[in-house]
Amino acid sequence: MKSEMLVGVMPPVPTPFDGRGEVAPGKLEENLLQLSRHALSGFVILGSNGEYVYLDEDEKAALFKAARRAIPKDKLFIAGTGAESTRAALRLTKLAAEAGADAAIVITPAYYKPAMTGEAMLKHFSTLADASPIPVILYNMPAYAGIDMSVDTILKLAEHPNIIGLKESAPNLVKISELTAKIAEKNLDFAVLAGSASYLQPSLMMGASGGVLAAVNVAPELCLNIYKACKENQVEEARRLQHSVLPLNAAVTTKYGVAGLKFVMDKIGLYGGPVRPPLLPLSPADQEAISKLNW
Amino acid sequence: MKSEMLVGVMPPVPTPFDGRGEVAPGKLEENLLQLSRHALSGFVILGSNGEYVYLDEDEKAALFKAARRAIPKDKLFIAGTGAESTRAALRLTKLAAEAGADAAIVITPAYYKPAMTGEAMLKHFSTLADASPIPVILYNMPAYAGIDMSVDTILKLAEHPNIIGLKESAPNLVKISELTAKIAEKNLDFAVLAGSASYLQPSLMMGASGGVLAAVNVAPELCLNIYKACKENQVEEARRLQHSVLPLNAAVTTKYGVAGLKFVMDKIGLYGGPVRPPLLPLSPADQEAISKLNW
Amino acid sequence: MKSEMLVGVMPPVPTPFDGRGEVAPGKLEENLLQLSRHALSGFVILGSNGEYVYLDEDEKAALFKAARRAIPKDKLFIAGTGAESTRAALRLTKLAAEAGADAAIVITPAYYKPAMTGEAMLKHFSTLADASPIPVILYNMPAYAGIDMSVDTILKLAEHPNIIGLKESAPNLVKISELTAKIAEKNLDFAVLAGSASYLQPSLMMGASGGVLAAVNVAPELCLNIYKACKENQVEEARRLQHSVLPLNAAVTTKYGVAGLKFVMDKIGLYGGPVRPPLLPLSPADQEAISKLNW
Amino acid sequence: MKSEMLVGVMPPVPTPFDGRGEVAPGKLEENLLQLSRHALSGFVILGSNGEYVYLDEDEKAALFKAARRAIPKDKLFIAGTGAESTRAALRLTKLAAEAGADAAIVITPAYYKPAMTGEAMLKHFSTLADASPIPVILYNMPAYAGIDMSVDTILKLAEHPNIIGLKESAPNLVKISELTAKIAEKNLDFAVLAGSASYLQPSLMMGASGGVLAAVNVAPELCLNIYKACKENQVEEARRLQHSVLPLNAAVTTKYGVAGLKFVMDKIGLYGGPVRPPLLPLSPADQEAISKLNW
Repeated sequence: MKSEMLVGVMPPVPTPFDGRGEVAPGKLEENLLQLSRHALSGFVILGSNGEYVYLDEDEKAALFKAARRAIPKDKLFIAGTGAESTRAALRLTKLAAEAGADAAIVITPAYYKPAMTGEAMLKHFSTLADASPIPVILYNMPAYAGIDMSVDTILKLAEHPNIIGLKESAPNLVKISELTAKIAEKNLDFAVLAGSASYLQPSLMMGASGGVLAAVNVAPELCLNIYKACKENQVEEARRLQHSVLPLNAAVTTKYGVAGLKFVMDKIGLYGGPVRPPLLPLSPADQEAISKLNW
Repeated sequence: MKSEMLVGVMPPVPTPFDGRGEVAPGKLEENLLQLSRHALSGFVILGSNGEYVYLDEDEKAALFKAARRAIPKDKLFIAGTGAESTRAALRLTKLAAEAGADAAIVITPAYYKPAMTGEAMLKHFSTLADASPIPVILYNMPAYAGIDMSVDTILKLAEHPNIIGLKESAPNLVKISELTAKIAEKNLDFAVLAGSASYLQPSLMMGASGGVLAAVNVAPELCLNIYKACKENQVEEARRLQHSVLPLNAAVTTKYGVAGLKFVMDKIGLYGGPVRPPLLPLSPADQEAISKLNW
Repeated sequence: MKSEMLVGVMPPVPTPFDGRGEVAPGKLEENLLQLSRHALSGFVILGSNGEYVYLDEDEKAALFKAARRAIPKDKLFIAGTGAESTRAALRLTKLAAEAGADAAIVITPAYYKPAMTGEAMLKHFSTLADASPIPVILYNMPAYAGIDMSVDTILKLAEHPNIIGLKESAPNLVKISELTAKIAEKNLDFAVLAGSASYLQPSLMMGASGGVLAAVNVAPELCLNIYKACKENQVEEARRLQHSVLPLNAAVTTKYGVAGLKFVMDKIGLYGGPVRPPLLPLSPADQEAISKLNW
Repeated sequence: MKSEMLVGVMPPVPTPFDGRGEVAPGKLEENLLQLSRHALSGFVILGSNGEYVYLDEDEKAALFKAARRAIPKDKLFIAGTGAESTRAALRLTKLAAEAGADAAIVITPAYYKPAMTGEAMLKHFSTLADASPIPVILYNMPAYAGIDMSVDTILKLAEHPNIIGLKESAPNLVKISELTAKIAEKNLDFAVLAGSASYLQPSLMMGASGGVLAAVNVAPELCLNIYKACKENQVEEARRLQHSVLPLNAAVTTKYGVAGLKFVMDKIGLYGGPVRPPLLPLSPADQEAISKLNW
């Protein structure tokens, strides 16, 4: 089954910018090499944490190439290739495939919200998956996209031979449960990945196969240990670890966003660097608050 | 610890109406006696599934008395006593206490939404808990109330000696995890209960102590088995059972609401009966759809 | 046409509570007598600004009777009689009719939000209007109720001979325009009333016949002048006056709510008094901010 | 005052695609020439109705050049140059200026919703306006962007000498009133434009100076007549015309979106053509429904 590659924990890696605000592919390589020392299953390049919406196509191409150079062959290279138009998403997916990506992760198009019906989603993703040289992973992210793809739509797309999974970035365990139940019932070749460390344990307990988690960038061993404890059915240990990841996870996601994530990366010896405007840098007060956390 | 009484699974029991639309306390007693044969920890009378918003105070008093007659002494009798005003909530709580309820479950006041701040919630619930003769359980139900009490507010209220727990009716496992983590860390005498069978397993795995679940009315043994499998750390069995409860649970909650729940109760030998207007009875098409489910 | 009575501007009068938190019908009478000196078309008793959700049935009966004593016969007495259940709304409507109210204003039931469909609304309001001894006015208040009745549903209800109008409390001028266009096209006996002074002028310009406005309690002449300027097609004057009412209106509605309204009433020689918990009194900072406004 | 150029009614012109889905700048020129026969004040190229989110930078450059060729010098050429990153928005604005645009209209960045605070908006738009060779118009479009810029933020930006106005695409007349009131009070050089014909009359009555309206593409004279009637304070005539535009306006905006707009354009002798995926073409049933409207 193709979807079996989607296991374990993977970081959605930030995009490094230099002091002048330009992309720094060399810094991305360095970060990837350093993170590769951990038993991570792979890496997502140009996800939401990669500020993909702020990059032009040339920058994306350069970053995909840098990622390919740095990511070991035994780990997955998943490229974020979502775009508002189907044709742009397809063009980026081909670009990523040419650069050597193993799979593409594609966010829901979202601009014309009332028109982004289940039917439009089916057309978008099946057109893309038909033509994509590499497997496609759906990416549902209502907090940013303002679109929440339904269980029914996802299950229809799960039957496409070139769509192998979903990153679900809403902490709705009923949805995740309904998906994993139906996938098991229909024996579909389709994996569900948790989209944040904040609900990794319940997702895994419920049938998710892994996670793409911002926190992996800054606490890889802790995330790996949650995953391991869940896989070994060590319920209390999994809960204890899951509890312990919550404050740091909030700091690098819901509370301070990408700026928070990059700030912590700078603190722990990875390259974080600046965010791109209109994202704002952390205020001194926020820096102080985040510095008090353990990691 | 007082909160230790809040374990296991409990049904929020519907309020029976007779053919003329009047409350039928005798039917409530019959249902409670029949449900008491299962190893349930207790019963919630006049929760959302009890159509509490459609009942006047005399009706509530009669139903509390009927419940007290029927509920065995070794099972909890939890009375829904929420109201928009603090004084009405307190009056109902005293009424329930006089009728012999073991605890009160109190929904967030919700009408003046912009004014229902954390500060207003702290005032409302602490005033109530100060004066209540019986322990108070918070009830957070954003889908109906349009109010989502924050983790911070709940944790402040959790320190009150007469507030012993929360029924959390949003399927947000991050919130449930943050609560259980802090409760454990601070060693608070406070229990978290899942508000729907649709996320019972992940809630228990994450640290919830039980659930108040509409599905218990129509599938008590299945809900008990999920609880038992979780408590025994039988992860795969818990997942399988959790998956199997989803379609029936949706039918008696999110899909068809109280009308669906009462329809199924009628089918399985309990008294369901009509809902009170403006709730509508199930359409023939919905009746047919629901009849195809297993229970 | 019955709906022709719904013209001009009317205040939704607050419910006075005394120092012990009990309703003070005498204070209501005094306020009504004082407000009656202005050329207001009528009064709404027990609307949202009347904290109707915090009152029990005996209190409501006493307040209706007090209102009847104080409201001059040539002004409308409109009683708020909404309730979650159809039967309670009907009982309150009959109570108001017996007390001498000229019409009832009835908010959308709202608790079981997914079940409060157009069909449920049609059933609720037509059942009520069929049995009501007095004409019924619909009350749509999404910011508090969490329910927004659609144009289609409202137009169907507008055909009922005993439903004579709508108070629309969302500042959505497209909705108000669609309603007034269809009412004119179909020549329906149905009036649309603006629900806040903050959009009185555009509503009147678009075809509304009047308004039920919290600001009338504290700035009756200004609201009357906006109405008059609109009726006389004095566009610039209407705009100037409309602009001038915005800060005070915000203070007694969206910014500080009923507590703000009562605070200003106390300042200008009406009886405001305390709000009922869980509503909180104004903080000193809010009192200072509101005191700086002109009225 | 610079903002005085923002008067009258202007269409946000759709982007024509040919049978293979490629941009057809020649068709854009033909549409603009035909629309220029009406007394429109100008044209918005690459707004939401121009499917700007589906176009790459080369396509945008070609369309700006085509627009410049076709738009008469006495009418405004306003170019949509919004983008998620500040640098991309600035690059597109310079591109538009070089192509001869008179002003740029720039939508709120929206992806990282919790980070798109008032502070982030101030930084984004003031950085852009500082460096832009042409005046900047703010574009607030919550239904698509999921972001609703506050009155306070807009008023701060209104003080920038190179920010001359706002297209407000929510039908919230309180917001529009608060803006026009403060602009008048502070005598700011800043114009407010209605974003849809569905609330053109109330917006103009309240102090807006014009509108950028999809309906102008298909009913230019009707929109011009509403504008004229409002400017001449012909209240009843303005209301009658405003009422009459509602069904067609809904068909080309909220009901059927850009696909509806292009369908009607094809019917009336302009070039509509296909939408770009993931937008879907109109279903036959929708085509039939829309064909029954008058225009």
